[in-house]
Amino acid sequence: MLDPKLLEALQAVVECGGFEKAAQRLFLTQSAVSQRIKLLEERLGQPVVTRTSPIDTTVAGRRLLRHFHQLSLMEKDLLDTLQVTRTDSAFTMLAIGVNADSLAGWFLQAVKPFLKRHPVVLDLLMDDQDYTHELMRNGHVAGCVSTRAQAVQGSECRLLGHVRYLCLATPAFRDRFFSSGMTPEALSAAPAILYDRKKDDMHHQFLSGTLGFTGHFPAFALPTPEGFLDYTREGLAYSLQPELMLADDLDTGRLVDLCPGLWMDMPMYWHHWRIESNLISEIEETLVEFALAHLRQP
Amino acid sequence: MLDPKLLEALQAVVECGGFEKAAQRLFLTQSAVSQRIKLLEERLGQPVVTRTSPIDTTVAGRRLLRHFHQLSLMEKDLLDTLQVTRTDSAFTMLAIGVNADSLAGWFLQAVKPFLKRHPVVLDLLMDDQDYTHELMRNGHVAGCVSTRAQAVQGSECRLLGHVRYLCLATPAFRDRFFSSGMTPEALSAAPAILYDRKKDDMHHQFLSGTLGFTGHFPAFALPTPEGFLDYTREGLAYSLQPELMLADDLDTGRLVDLCPGLWMDMPMYWHHWRIESNLISEIEETLVEFALAHLRQP
Repeated sequence: MLDPKLLEALQAVVECGGFEKAAQRLFLTQSAVSQRIKLLEERLGQPVVTRTSPIDTTVAGRRLLRHFHQLSLMEKDLLDTLQVTRTDSAFTMLAIGVNADSLAGWFLQAVKPFLKRHPVVLDLLMDDQDYTHELMRNGHVAGCVSTRAQAVQGSECRLLGHVRYLCLATPAFRDRFFSSGMTPEALSAAPAILYDRKKDDMHHQFLSGTLGFTGHFPAFALPTPEGFLDYTREGLAYSLQPELMLADDLDTGRLVDLCPGLWMDMPMYWHHWRIESNLISEIEETLVEFALAHLRQP
Repeated sequence: MLDPKLLEALQAVVECGGFEKAAQRLFLTQSAVSQRIKLLEERLGQPVVTRTSPIDTTVAGRRLLRHFHQLSLMEKDLLDTLQVTRTDSAFTMLAIGVNADSLAGWFLQAVKPFLKRHPVVLDLLMDDQDYTHELMRNGHVAGCVSTRAQAVQGSECRLLGHVRYLCLATPAFRDRFFSSGMTPEALSAAPAILYDRKKDDMHHQFLSGTLGFTGHFPAFALPTPEGFLDYTREGLAYSLQPELMLADDLDTGRLVDLCPGLWMDMPMYWHHWRIESNLISEIEETLVEFALAHLRQP
């Protein structure tokens, strides 16, 4: 079997982004850490990390990391079952991938009951929408929330529900820009909000797929979903808003639905490795419970 | 002079991340866009974009982009002065770099008065702390908020003020983990919150620089500053919080200061190109006004 000390060194080097910090973290000299990585590479006959700054993993390194994370979770279960007192930190670290919308919109809220029951600290890795899936494939996370249904090999996935996005603005904004409806002329003049200008975005999908508009339009790029709601409420732009992030905005008329009867439903899937782990099962239960209460069920 | 059409094509290719989308955006064929980029490259004798996916700029391309942004701002001023009705979208796009903490903590709030006075949409480019400075150097942004005082060549910078970070937790969290104070033993057991595990983080600086602790500690990695306050209020962790994001947490005793008299003051500098632009001057005035009211002044 591979010496877990070598895997632990790899994990520290990748997590800390370099040999020097990994050494501090493991209370070792830098050359001891470097030696452990070399031993791993000799054993595998190939490099496990790139010698770049910051350090990244090779394909082999990613497979090893995934293996190490799985071992850690399985060992935690074993020790819990045997009621062994663990000598390392009382907190287990669980790496989870979450897309930016979900992180701001519901994920942090949804996992709270789980975190209050277990000594776990979350290592949340975020990117916009579909990329979180890659984190799973690369072994950087033990589970992820993704819009994709396709399970990575060796993992399982289940639908949590759909997040419904409505196209909203203040009444004053609607009167100023959309008094004649969502026409191409109006859409090319009214400022919208995008998460990130470079990526394919839900707003583009909504305009082209639902409204048939593919022209250019002015848009804020706000890489913080919380900012979307704030700027929409201020009347600075219109935007697609997840309904579960809204307070009483629609009831009070602070915001109005620009396209009644039209929306985007984004599916949310929970992916996790196919291993026996109580922590993974329990986080899944917590997410499912939240999803049944707050996400749209098909 | 370089044909602005060529620069516009470059800007569209970089902003859209590829030739096909740039073509849609400019209502041109893909080969027309490609032709314009080639003309630019022939004129300069070197490539301006990498033929990767997504496309990135070369050093020459970045300099051209910066030049193009400057021209756009100067032309806007000129047309405003001459009271010429512009034929393109009524909204001017202004690219600004902001570090993640500032974006969540005060920047979106601070620029609102400016946005309410001017038909401007912001293109906000974010990264953790010091990296925003690079966006300025690369010409991706017209201005940026950074913790660094050093001005990029051709730009000016001024101190807006300091954001003060306090080390906070709920009273119950303090009693559970820090009943004997901020000792090394307590710090290695109490869960903290980091923005991103891989980067050098204010929390590490506070622990090592202010408290003299360099050991390992359990920590959440939450890549959303809003989550910091939420999870700290829930008693799941302790964290460094910018005082201007706090509501009445300290007055009501919901949160307590774990290290009274100790804090981190992060300087916030406003950087902008040294060009005549009313928009840039006015956004600066707005930021300075907010900073005088809400940031710590030296």
